[in-house]
Amino acid sequence: MSKVRVHNFSVSLDGFATGEGQRLDAPFGHAGSRLVEWAFETQTFRDMGIHGVSAASHGVDEAFASNWAPGVGAEIMGRNKFGPQRGPWQNEDWKGWWGSNPVFHTPVIVLTHHPRPPVAMDGGTTFHFVDADPATALEQARALAGGLDVRIGGGAITIRQFLEADLVDRMHIVLVPIVLGRGERLWDGLEGLEQRFAIEATSSPSGVVHLSFERKKPASSESLAGGSDR
Amino acid sequence: MSKVRVHNFSVSLDGFATGEGQRLDAPFGHAGSRLVEWAFETQTFRDMGIHGVSAASHGVDEAFASNWAPGVGAEIMGRNKFGPQRGPWQNEDWKGWWGSNPVFHTPVIVLTHHPRPPVAMDGGTTFHFVDADPATALEQARALAGGLDVRIGGGAITIRQFLEADLVDRMHIVLVPIVLGRGERLWDGLEGLEQRFAIEATSSPSGVVHLSFERKKPASSESLAGGSDR
Repeated sequence: MSKVRVHNFSVSLDGFATGEGQRLDAPFGHAGSRLVEWAFETQTFRDMGIHGVSAASHGVDEAFASNWAPGVGAEIMGRNKFGPQRGPWQNEDWKGWWGSNPVFHTPVIVLTHHPRPPVAMDGGTTFHFVDADPATALEQARALAGGLDVRIGGGAITIRQFLEADLVDRMHIVLVPIVLGRGERLWDGLEGLEQRFAIEATSSPSGVVHLSFERKKPASSESLAGGSDR
Repeated sequence: MSKVRVHNFSVSLDGFATGEGQRLDAPFGHAGSRLVEWAFETQTFRDMGIHGVSAASHGVDEAFASNWAPGVGAEIMGRNKFGPQRGPWQNEDWKGWWGSNPVFHTPVIVLTHHPRPPVAMDGGTTFHFVDADPATALEQARALAGGLDVRIGGGAITIRQFLEADLVDRMHIVLVPIVLGRGERLWDGLEGLEQRFAIEATSSPSGVVHLSFERKKPASSESLAGGSDR
């Protein structure tokens, strides 16, 4: 069975994955770019057209960042990652933060209570708007992924829901040593999460810490099917 | 001026420094010993009579743990670290968790709204019970420390108060990769803390991450005096 993976997902010391006040000009709210600056300095993000301030890193930050795409056939993201709008779509002009040729190059399921027709972008990305629970959305993503893995792209609420449903096999969290104070927390409701994962921590010269979560006991296809019946 | 230091203070991924339900038989509440097990395996804690399960570590965990005592002439702790009782003392029998010869071997100020006479223990530890704000308590600790540094021993509320008052020069936090879900949070109310400190992260083979906070701009004696006038 293909794996369900999380990559390059940053949280603050106090566990916030985004700040307060997400807007068109502030995708991470009051956090600004502070949660993602480590990634801007990697070759992988440079290749996506996101430029940092120094020469691209090929060290441990890049080693983790570069695992983002290989082997992934579809992404599932929450609607708050797709854009700043809330509630019913005012119109269908908004096609994500990523321009005409988004970085995904795979099908992307956008979880929303307000479905709309799929949007095909340049470069192989198609946004599918789906109102479904995590297990059902994962079934759909697997059908679109052509046997490859499925990435859970965020934001915090979406990753939390997939962790609560025990649907995540691998997770790469980047701990950024800042105290955000407010925003969306990743860890809420996940007491005892460590019991399900082997966890490894790797500090980087850039100041962040890479946390690798590997599920101790992969879910059998039976338990996954059970999950989708809920 | 002597430094104000925090050492070996563990928090979970979600920022809790102790669990819920602190009791005589559960000093860390539902967290059990999980926040402090890394320390049990160090030579420093072995020498304090706290025994882990494997051969004592002399690696990075010990390197950090061993900085706990040298140069420290007094500790300030919150009443919740001293014991499980709350409110007025029922009697004065309780003399801390640490037996007749406590590990501190210096004066220790216990912050409490219910002062009682000092208690002199074996080995140089004397507990002083003080009802004071952080700056005033620090003045008293410095007077007792004989020119040496003052350690803020915890718990979370006490360290947070000293951080809020900008009285901490160095802080060693140990991030333990568990999700506690409930208890006492360290980081609440400290938004932007990183702006005042240079922060270094070091991952350990034991699985924890050592975070070193060093104040960027040491407080001048004037600003400290100002703080004590508040």
